[in-house]
Amino acid sequence: MPIVKYISVNAPPPSLQDNSADIDRLKNALRAKVPGFLVVPFAQMSNVAAGFRQAKFSGTAVVNEAVGCPESRRLAYLELVDFIREPAPLAAMALDLGTTHLEATLLDLTTSKPLARANRENSQLQFGEDVLSRIHYAARPGGLANLQSAIIADINYLAADLAAQAGLPSALIRALSVSGNPTMIHLFLKLDPANICREPYIPVLNAPDLYHAADLGLCLHPAAPVFVLPSVGSYFGGDLIAGILASGLDENEHTSMLIDVGTNAEVVLGNKDWLIACAGAAGPALEGGVARMGMRAGPGAIEHIRIKPGSLTMSYETVGGQPACGICGSGIIDLVASLYLAGIIDLRGKFRPGSDSRLHETPTGLSYTVVPTADAANNRAIELEQVDLDAMMRSKAAMYAVLTTLISQVGLSFADLEKIYVAGAFGRHIDPERAVTLGMLPDLPIKTYVPVGNSSLAGAEKVLLGSHDRQRCQQIMQKITYIELNVNQEFMMRFSGAKFIPHTDGSLFPSVPIMNE
Amino acid sequence: MPIVKYISVNAPPPSLQDNSADIDRLKNALRAKVPGFLVVPFAQMSNVAAGFRQAKFSGTAVVNEAVGCPESRRLAYLELVDFIREPAPLAAMALDLGTTHLEATLLDLTTSKPLARANRENSQLQFGEDVLSRIHYAARPGGLANLQSAIIADINYLAADLAAQAGLPSALIRALSVSGNPTMIHLFLKLDPANICREPYIPVLNAPDLYHAADLGLCLHPAAPVFVLPSVGSYFGGDLIAGILASGLDENEHTSMLIDVGTNAEVVLGNKDWLIACAGAAGPALEGGVARMGMRAGPGAIEHIRIKPGSLTMSYETVGGQPACGICGSGIIDLVASLYLAGIIDLRGKFRPGSDSRLHETPTGLSYTVVPTADAANNRAIELEQVDLDAMMRSKAAMYAVLTTLISQVGLSFADLEKIYVAGAFGRHIDPERAVTLGMLPDLPIKTYVPVGNSSLAGAEKVLLGSHDRQRCQQIMQKITYIELNVNQEFMMRFSGAKFIPHTDGSLFPSVPIMNE
Repeated sequence: MPIVKYISVNAPPPSLQDNSADIDRLKNALRAKVPGFLVVPFAQMSNVAAGFRQAKFSGTAVVNEAVGCPESRRLAYLELVDFIREPAPLAAMALDLGTTHLEATLLDLTTSKPLARANRENSQLQFGEDVLSRIHYAARPGGLANLQSAIIADINYLAADLAAQAGLPSALIRALSVSGNPTMIHLFLKLDPANICREPYIPVLNAPDLYHAADLGLCLHPAAPVFVLPSVGSYFGGDLIAGILASGLDENEHTSMLIDVGTNAEVVLGNKDWLIACAGAAGPALEGGVARMGMRAGPGAIEHIRIKPGSLTMSYETVGGQPACGICGSGIIDLVASLYLAGIIDLRGKFRPGSDSRLHETPTGLSYTVVPTADAANNRAIELEQVDLDAMMRSKAAMYAVLTTLISQVGLSFADLEKIYVAGAFGRHIDPERAVTLGMLPDLPIKTYVPVGNSSLAGAEKVLLGSHDRQRCQQIMQKITYIELNVNQEFMMRFSGAKFIPHTDGSLFPSVPIMNE
Repeated sequence: MPIVKYISVNAPPPSLQDNSADIDRLKNALRAKVPGFLVVPFAQMSNVAAGFRQAKFSGTAVVNEAVGCPESRRLAYLELVDFIREPAPLAAMALDLGTTHLEATLLDLTTSKPLARANRENSQLQFGEDVLSRIHYAARPGGLANLQSAIIADINYLAADLAAQAGLPSALIRALSVSGNPTMIHLFLKLDPANICREPYIPVLNAPDLYHAADLGLCLHPAAPVFVLPSVGSYFGGDLIAGILASGLDENEHTSMLIDVGTNAEVVLGNKDWLIACAGAAGPALEGGVARMGMRAGPGAIEHIRIKPGSLTMSYETVGGQPACGICGSGIIDLVASLYLAGIIDLRGKFRPGSDSRLHETPTGLSYTVVPTADAANNRAIELEQVDLDAMMRSKAAMYAVLTTLISQVGLSFADLEKIYVAGAFGRHIDPERAVTLGMLPDLPIKTYVPVGNSSLAGAEKVLLGSHDRQRCQQIMQKITYIELNVNQEFMMRFSGAKFIPHTDGSLFPSVPIMNE
């Protein structure tokens, strides 16, 4: 059942012989059609009663399945929030609440079809670029309130945008689901995030109850239930639970893996019987975090690069075909893999002096000109410096170390995996073959890798549509084992071994040619 | 279990090995001590988490038994609303929300003892004297909002008074129960009362859910649950359900009767197996509604009167011993019964010309001087006119007709009754013997009559203290059969027969002397 439902009601009008109260009459008419405990929130009572009378006791009741996570299986607790004569599309908003970017879908819950899509930069960026700087800002007087108002304003703006596209007032958006990392969720709920980044890394809460939109200052229907996907811990958020929901990892017979690369590389391994997860700081180089030239996969970002070995001729493609203004995660992987295959960098990820005319000296070492000033947007050459390469090598090593640590924890090898789901912009754009060349992803048949797009948003959509998926959130929370890599010795060893292309142990990557010194 | 409970918690502090979120940790610690589904309202989340941390994970959790009426038996649904180090007395406010008067008790829910009492005139009186005039006022633009703000302001004033007496801030009043007639409850909840007084007499709701004090604009703890005693119909309110709770009528083995005289005479008959009720417009003469001289049982009201047959010497007592300024319901009954026994009025309730020197002619007929100007407060003589007597005769006839109609419905006679509980100021002050003389109450042994005081308030106190009594509300609602006297032919016949002192059929009142013409 969707989180909000229209239920048609045809109640007998009152008489001296049948003189129950309006709201009791409506509840009675609904009792045959919906199971469970029915309440009318105080703020909706007048409206519900007036709507029921105006419609002459026949029309459509709007009922929220007000099932709090994580105890949703234990009771059916329903809210009666509106009564209307002519139902509009039953609109609900799914939101991926990212640290830098918000992405939303407006769904019609009766048809399960999208009515509109919208996205927007997170305007909390004015208070801090990343999660840590926002946590610090939140500790200032008024800081938390500023961060929360910023995100609420963003969501209201998105809601208005979606509603306008669908030809509805925002007040007819009747539910919201939110998927985000634990810090974003704390800021959204105006909860102090201070302890998330202090040992022992304790969030205020992992499993939010259900709230009303009006409680949060959201300009949706005031009684719209707000379903926040639960977290497992400070470093494993609802966005990952959403990814598991979207990939179906937790329901597969065979063991699969889900990789989500954002600021952290977050990885889940498992099947219908067990789930294990970990996260590592692998991301910055992969999501626009590389010094100067990095950017998100937006217009003008280089997303694919080839360098022909021998002639060393370079070709590239940008997002939207626009003049190049930077390079995104998938572009960097392509670039570094190409540089390796063309013999321009060695297996330690260092430029080989004199190997290419594009290399030139700078005060901080060698630098490689990807796009010269003349060809670049904004007259700004795109350069790859040695420090960028070093950051990339650390990121790719961290990623591989995370994956191997995780798989070894359960006594499996990569060959046992049926699928590796790759989430996010990273998954949509990268060429898995190049990531394998770099030794970032394991050397498996390319068809093992399945891009799953914005799985945080896809999971948020799912929980609006079905109670089964809302209940899966809770099951996943309870089933998952989280490994803290910050305190894991084995991880550090594996990390050192992975700081070569493709790896110190070349036998792990039979498909990758070893380029001798 | 009381509606709010303190639960002491001693949770282990978080560590890397035990890193569940603060609120989840608190919920887990409580799960062993309270059964059921636990949620934290959005508005309380930050406070609960901060309190738990400040108390170093050991202290007192405040849990509301958020059990909505009428489905309370079906689930245990609990709210976690506060966490404190040093608990203050667990204060909760019980309120009798009368049309003219508000009476409240502040209870300590841990000891079940009263902490304070207070009362206040209903400031809705400025908008209309009685229920009907308020319903009309509510239909004006802004009328309902004015009526609701007036009553909320009154309750906030009472809460501040109670809290000051108990040495607490109002914000530490952690629950409220409200007992009142259906119109008062509609105005309290800002629900349109228009259909209450129009055939077929349909309230917006009979069985309110549980609300938070903040929803209603009440200055108590914002999450204080507001429990409103349910109504049975437009003419049988939560004040009567409270009376049944207080008298125990619904749990007695033997059949008893409860009489509550306010603006209406409301009567319930029954035992643990069945309950039957009705109401009739019997009240005005009995509750200060008699023209000019009537008043509530406040200071200076004549509450007892004797006239010595023969000498016709009169003696009276006023409330508080103050100079007489009016006459209350019990005083009127005494007066009319005395006038009858002294031969000053006949069995039709008409003054006998020349029977007493206190009688004198007025433009509207004979009048009897109860207190001459010289002895009265405010230099205003207290007079009983023929029109007042006529109103009194109608009231007493209506009362007796209500009682006989009800008892005949179930094939019983008055002699089958174990007890007759008499509620309200009427019950506290009247001399049942005099009411029997008048033929207002049946001629039963005087010990049958049990005054139960303000049973509306007593019932409101009970529901704060025990879940059993909250559940009884629902059971009473479901069990009770309500008879509509407005459409009852038999009632009209009985009413005519009762317009004599004591009755047209004197054999019904063997203890009352028949005063011949």
